[in-house]
Amino acid sequence: MLTADEHTDLARALTQIAADHLDRPCPDSDAEDLHTWIEGVLTALVGDAGRRIHTARSRNDQVATLLVMYALSANERLQSRLAQLITALCSRAKSWSDLVMPLQTHQQFAAPGTVGYWALRFAASLARIRAHLAFLADHWRSACPLGSAAVAGSTLPVDRRIQSANLGFTAPSLSALASTSARDECLELLAVLAQIALYLQAFAADVIAFSQTPLAWTKYPPQFGTGSSMMPNKTNPDAMELLRGDACAILTAHAHALTLLKGLPSGYNRDLQGIKPLLRDTVEKTLNACELLTAFVAALDFSAEHLLASARLGNIDATARMEAQVAAGTPLREAHHAVAETLSTAPATPEALTAIVHAYRTIGSASPAETRRVADELLAQLARTE
Amino acid sequence: MLTADEHTDLARALTQIAADHLDRPCPDSDAEDLHTWIEGVLTALVGDAGRRIHTARSRNDQVATLLVMYALSANERLQSRLAQLITALCSRAKSWSDLVMPLQTHQQFAAPGTVGYWALRFAASLARIRAHLAFLADHWRSACPLGSAAVAGSTLPVDRRIQSANLGFTAPSLSALASTSARDECLELLAVLAQIALYLQAFAADVIAFSQTPLAWTKYPPQFGTGSSMMPNKTNPDAMELLRGDACAILTAHAHALTLLKGLPSGYNRDLQGIKPLLRDTVEKTLNACELLTAFVAALDFSAEHLLASARLGNIDATARMEAQVAAGTPLREAHHAVAETLSTAPATPEALTAIVHAYRTIGSASPAETRRVADELLAQLARTE
Amino acid sequence: MLTADEHTDLARALTQIAADHLDRPCPDSDAEDLHTWIEGVLTALVGDAGRRIHTARSRNDQVATLLVMYALSANERLQSRLAQLITALCSRAKSWSDLVMPLQTHQQFAAPGTVGYWALRFAASLARIRAHLAFLADHWRSACPLGSAAVAGSTLPVDRRIQSANLGFTAPSLSALASTSARDECLELLAVLAQIALYLQAFAADVIAFSQTPLAWTKYPPQFGTGSSMMPNKTNPDAMELLRGDACAILTAHAHALTLLKGLPSGYNRDLQGIKPLLRDTVEKTLNACELLTAFVAALDFSAEHLLASARLGNIDATARMEAQVAAGTPLREAHHAVAETLSTAPATPEALTAIVHAYRTIGSASPAETRRVADELLAQLARTE
Amino acid sequence: MLTADEHTDLARALTQIAADHLDRPCPDSDAEDLHTWIEGVLTALVGDAGRRIHTARSRNDQVATLLVMYALSANERLQSRLAQLITALCSRAKSWSDLVMPLQTHQQFAAPGTVGYWALRFAASLARIRAHLAFLADHWRSACPLGSAAVAGSTLPVDRRIQSANLGFTAPSLSALASTSARDECLELLAVLAQIALYLQAFAADVIAFSQTPLAWTKYPPQFGTGSSMMPNKTNPDAMELLRGDACAILTAHAHALTLLKGLPSGYNRDLQGIKPLLRDTVEKTLNACELLTAFVAALDFSAEHLLASARLGNIDATARMEAQVAAGTPLREAHHAVAETLSTAPATPEALTAIVHAYRTIGSASPAETRRVADELLAQLARTE
Repeated sequence: MLTADEHTDLARALTQIAADHLDRPCPDSDAEDLHTWIEGVLTALVGDAGRRIHTARSRNDQVATLLVMYALSANERLQSRLAQLITALCSRAKSWSDLVMPLQTHQQFAAPGTVGYWALRFAASLARIRAHLAFLADHWRSACPLGSAAVAGSTLPVDRRIQSANLGFTAPSLSALASTSARDECLELLAVLAQIALYLQAFAADVIAFSQTPLAWTKYPPQFGTGSSMMPNKTNPDAMELLRGDACAILTAHAHALTLLKGLPSGYNRDLQGIKPLLRDTVEKTLNACELLTAFVAALDFSAEHLLASARLGNIDATARMEAQVAAGTPLREAHHAVAETLSTAPATPEALTAIVHAYRTIGSASPAETRRVADELLAQLARTE
Repeated sequence: MLTADEHTDLARALTQIAADHLDRPCPDSDAEDLHTWIEGVLTALVGDAGRRIHTARSRNDQVATLLVMYALSANERLQSRLAQLITALCSRAKSWSDLVMPLQTHQQFAAPGTVGYWALRFAASLARIRAHLAFLADHWRSACPLGSAAVAGSTLPVDRRIQSANLGFTAPSLSALASTSARDECLELLAVLAQIALYLQAFAADVIAFSQTPLAWTKYPPQFGTGSSMMPNKTNPDAMELLRGDACAILTAHAHALTLLKGLPSGYNRDLQGIKPLLRDTVEKTLNACELLTAFVAALDFSAEHLLASARLGNIDATARMEAQVAAGTPLREAHHAVAETLSTAPATPEALTAIVHAYRTIGSASPAETRRVADELLAQLARTE
Repeated sequence: MLTADEHTDLARALTQIAADHLDRPCPDSDAEDLHTWIEGVLTALVGDAGRRIHTARSRNDQVATLLVMYALSANERLQSRLAQLITALCSRAKSWSDLVMPLQTHQQFAAPGTVGYWALRFAASLARIRAHLAFLADHWRSACPLGSAAVAGSTLPVDRRIQSANLGFTAPSLSALASTSARDECLELLAVLAQIALYLQAFAADVIAFSQTPLAWTKYPPQFGTGSSMMPNKTNPDAMELLRGDACAILTAHAHALTLLKGLPSGYNRDLQGIKPLLRDTVEKTLNACELLTAFVAALDFSAEHLLASARLGNIDATARMEAQVAAGTPLREAHHAVAETLSTAPATPEALTAIVHAYRTIGSASPAETRRVADELLAQLARTE
Repeated sequence: MLTADEHTDLARALTQIAADHLDRPCPDSDAEDLHTWIEGVLTALVGDAGRRIHTARSRNDQVATLLVMYALSANERLQSRLAQLITALCSRAKSWSDLVMPLQTHQQFAAPGTVGYWALRFAASLARIRAHLAFLADHWRSACPLGSAAVAGSTLPVDRRIQSANLGFTAPSLSALASTSARDECLELLAVLAQIALYLQAFAADVIAFSQTPLAWTKYPPQFGTGSSMMPNKTNPDAMELLRGDACAILTAHAHALTLLKGLPSGYNRDLQGIKPLLRDTVEKTLNACELLTAFVAALDFSAEHLLASARLGNIDATARMEAQVAAGTPLREAHHAVAETLSTAPATPEALTAIVHAYRTIGSASPAETRRVADELLAQLARTE
């Protein structure tokens, strides 16, 4: 469709446009959009070759392609940012792996564990999400929209396999109508971002609860908090509260996109343009929140003394005492009743609590050695996939 | 933990309980829940062995495990139901591949295509979603929660790799706290169900629009419609409207689950129980909707005459005429202006429209041959993955 | 349109149908729906008069009318159920008005208050929502849809003012198209239900947090909790966790309805049928949740000893000490700094804490007298509006 | 708490700060927030009086108060902007009241109406929403948060009734804890904005459908559309598509706020700060969308010729023919069957269609006279409430 000279001219002119405008303010123009503006400038620079640039193309397939490419780039940045956060969590999990903490179920003290085991929860779940992102990148690369044109493809002899390969995809899409109508990669990315945001706000909610006056487990980093204008006695965990609140924009973006897409007829509809800023804002918010949390994790510390004071409460040694009877041959339910009837004893000693966490024997348990083993396994996984 | 005799007794007693109660009404009982009830019945049948059944277990890891197993089973049923729907769509796409239809962008007639090409859009997109489901099944199988116990694992020497393998998983989960706190597989399944529902309602919305009085493209199957109580002239596309409306319960279930999970502290919380009926209802609704649509696709027909009457409107041959000039050497933008100025000609002839759809040359285009080729490729994919 | 005899016949036949079928299982029938079935039975009973029953009517305006009537009835039941809950809260607020409790901001102990003041928060906010419901009932009654017919009204001389008055409305609607297309009263009711659910889950979240091991402020009513299958030391606040989780179905129903309505064309669409079960389920869930919470509030108790132990922590007397300096003439900010520098003193005495709550002087403050005054004001409001 | 001189000084200093900074960029400062910054500047200007400015106050009650005041101001702007849109719709409804158009149910041609009757649907529904806004303004004004202080009120003798009256409220709030914990006015405003957005997108969806090639009912205003980069034959209804898409941000903001509020404990939490930008953005988007639609309504026109061509299709005179038989004594169902069997007659004549719309007799029907009467009634309502 282009002579060799036209091709050279266009490449040179596009390089010049990039040099003149990249990272600069948007030029004033009457053009309907950026695609039209670029064609106009190209035509001014190289004549007819510019007028040929849109051959076998529509803005419909161009924006669909750019959106997948943006999703791929965001996916890569997310994987990298998650790797940093997981690394920070694993590193802290190891250093906190002997710091005894009461674990909770139903928001009630339940059994002894460690701060490291708690931190590792988030590393393990985020690593799982990162593996999903890696699959999605391959999934998205398998269907390049470019060449779908407006809605039906083109009568011109364009080989979409070449376009697709040049842009880093593994194949062109199978239906030009599907490619220009759908935004599945956006939905898939937004769903993953919601899962990440759920973990970010869960971490924040835990830290806020751990910082509550009578627990005082954390040494909350002052650079992430503020004082009170009225109450001289207060310092507040503001950064974690803001993170928990801001996560909700990420949590609801998926529903926003679904609402937008609901009811649209087949073929490109201009409504779809609304997905672009939604996706970009949600990606950036998630990246920023991951970065904030990575810095916060590095700065967070705990009070062994307050943790221990709490851990002695609530008879949280009961399960281990019951399991000791089970190991000695008593049926579980009988041991359960026996221990339940002898709860009103003295608080557990620090030594007993430490002994329990070291006695956990199952894979993925709260034992310090297991926490360190799993943290190393997660770090090794990251090393393999980076 | 169990003698060989106890093991045999328990296996026999569990078989008997299944024989007595499966698919029967729930027995009257004061037991707190089904797990407790089963333990009680086992103990009545086999004594101490029953009292040992809950060794190194909690309802927390049991419900987490059962939920993943439910998700895996739902995933399989969905893949199978989607395969039926995709097969129906591909089969119809092939038989409709020569039936000329005006394609739309911005809900405006845009270019000639075929009914088969339109139907294939849904097959291609659903096949893509099905591949995602296949990945998710592997993803879910890689982390069996059983053995996580209440929150911290157990001090008893239970090998979670054996449990995991026996239940069809590839590995035990890495963090007992993560496994009992999270419901990621539910979120991931609900997100995919939302994408499926989006396509189901989009198909319905298209068919409703295609059935509108002045288009009258469809021969709407009367068994999927109703009359009007007041207007003698009406038959209404009720099944498609109900499908479009009911899809919204599926579309919003993901947000429901996210809202429920937001703000929960680490460790099992009883709120999580609300995910179970939500997931089950949403899965069943999606399976039913797929089944309905599969039957509908088989019954749907089109009026070639009405399609052609529409296709002659709106100058939808313009792009092909422009591309013919481009093929002859005119720059695209010049050809675009030239054609735009000569639109007020006579309606396109049927022959011209047919010639255009046969002239599409790109991969994934609206050409009848390409529709048949892609349909066969999708059917071959299904054959490989079933 | 009807003779006097026909009118009498129809009234008698309708009474008989009601007597035969009300609260019985749905009769077997080939009729398309209930409206059609009733017309058939009437015709069998009274001949031509039955065939006239649908005159100047459509199912479109009938279902729209019945939905508003359902919303009005639900509104009334909600106001009544909220009155019971508010009464229970006010009654407990008065009896708990001297029970000192540390109030929190940012989930940190902040200032002394009382349990009564805390409970009153919910009474005050729910009373505000109840006033909104009262307005909405009037709002809904001002536009009776009946007589809108299918979409355009009727050419028959039906006086919609008579229909409207007979059904308890104050006026017929102004646009038959608006009445048959819209479901605003459903959206308005769902939005109010979401606000109620937000308070229900907030009460639950507070009680769960107050029941946490180291606080142990509540004497959690055992009939609303369960034990642990693995941990002999645990009793869990299950009813409150289930309430918090189930509230999420109510919180998301509004978004479900909006999604369903999005993109629908003017005029009745069968999709609208999906609003009916959604509204009914959400209303029933909210009524049940209110009833559960009313019973729970009556059964809940607190430990004065544990409350006091907590209240002595966190220097929560600081603001009152600062305000004492302000009352003596020191500028606020200066007093704030002065108190902030002298925080590491001994825990506040019980007497000092009691003195502070009695020293609050502003309207709506945490003073015991003010709590009792506001509770009585809310109870008097209820008495006036019931 | 302040001497007369201090009061004068503060008033003068605040005036000066306003003069120096209003509508200017935010000054550089280390202050934690604007409240703290103002106090610092005041102290620099007037000494101790500045240090007293925060007496009996907290940022918690200040931001709660400012948010209600913002909601009240937004409410007023919305009522005014809705009045403009309703006026535009009523004005066009009157001028279009004789322009015959086929009304639809189930997206199928159903009965004759007019373009004016269609436009009036939106005016009537928006007027209803505007009445709700007027109630909400009174509702919000009945509970001024100021004086709630941080969480418990104050021990200083501040009369909240004076504060409340000075700020335009009718009473102080009844619970300082409720006032600083809740954001009900935001939820109520967001719910109304969602209802408005639903109508805006419904209008857009109708116009897009009316502009579809074979209907071509609209003369779509070219300044609100664009051409196609690939298809020379296309002009697209972009502004209406963008409006329909952008409305989805408004539709989902309510769910965003609910998600943020879910799970928060009693008392101020910093998460609440996230409501402010969400509310402001959603209000501004709604105001802009109303303004756009008001301009669009003024520019929109219709093709009587194309409307009539459509109206002759689909036997939409059937209901009127049936009702003529009913008026002559035939039972409705008998007439319904009779007309249903004689549908395959010639297309309705223009005269017959015009006769039908003039024959509608019910309140709120599609008759031209009734459209004009209702439009005038809505305009008179606006005149009374502005």
